[in-house]
Amino acid sequence: MEKFNLYEKLDLIEDYWSPKIVGQLNRQHVKLAKLKGEFVWHHHDEEDELFLVLKGRLLIQFRDGDVLLEQGDCLVIPRGVEHRPVAEEEVSVLLFEPAGTLNTGNVRSQHTQENLDRI
Amino acid sequence: MEKFNLYEKLDLIEDYWSPKIVGQLNRQHVKLAKLKGEFVWHHHDEEDELFLVLKGRLLIQFRDGDVLLEQGDCLVIPRGVEHRPVAEEEVSVLLFEPAGTLNTGNVRSQHTQENLDRI
Repeated sequence: MEKFNLYEKLDLIEDYWSPKIVGQLNRQHVKLAKLKGEFVWHHHDEEDELFLVLKGRLLIQFRDGDVLLEQGDCLVIPRGVEHRPVAEEEVSVLLFEPAGTLNTGNVRSQHTQENLDRI
Repeated sequence: MEKFNLYEKLDLIEDYWSPKIVGQLNRQHVKLAKLKGEFVWHHHDEEDELFLVLKGRLLIQFRDGDVLLEQGDCLVIPRGVEHRPVAEEEVSVLLFEPAGTLNTGNVRSQHTQENLDRI
């Protein structure tokens, strides 16, 4: 049982769109990621997903509108809801989601990360 | 599906040791709480619990030692592990744990909160 600091962990991340596992509990993962640019449209069949913006701004596009998240903002995206994260500038986020959640959900793309690093 | 800001939600909390539900996903709750003083020794039989310190400092006592958490620090306390949070000064924390987790775990005390408010 060891504490970890979110900001120190963020400093270890150098690649975009590559979530890292920093904690796990109750079959859920706590992940950190840096994002920049446009992701792929996708949804998660079985998993709700929480985004918390730690630094920067993140636009999350939905088919019926966009939500802009700024520092300290959280959004829970229910399973089945198609979305696309877009970051004009680098943004750092915390994700909470069930262990095994694939970052690109129902699609495969160059962004798909099968095996996540733990940092 | 609405975004919420952790710091704006914290501003709504006036009482200590009274976690508020701010989000839920995958049968887990995201809670915010302000803590000050000494809590009760307890453990959770079935739930792992994540603490994230948003503002201030939180000491978590264990039977074999203490862990001091500062801003941005996270700690996952596995089910079954007895612990006691102690805050010399007011501290604001985010908790992530299964829906239904009782704040005092296996004990009942004046701190026990049966029905949590949503804010």
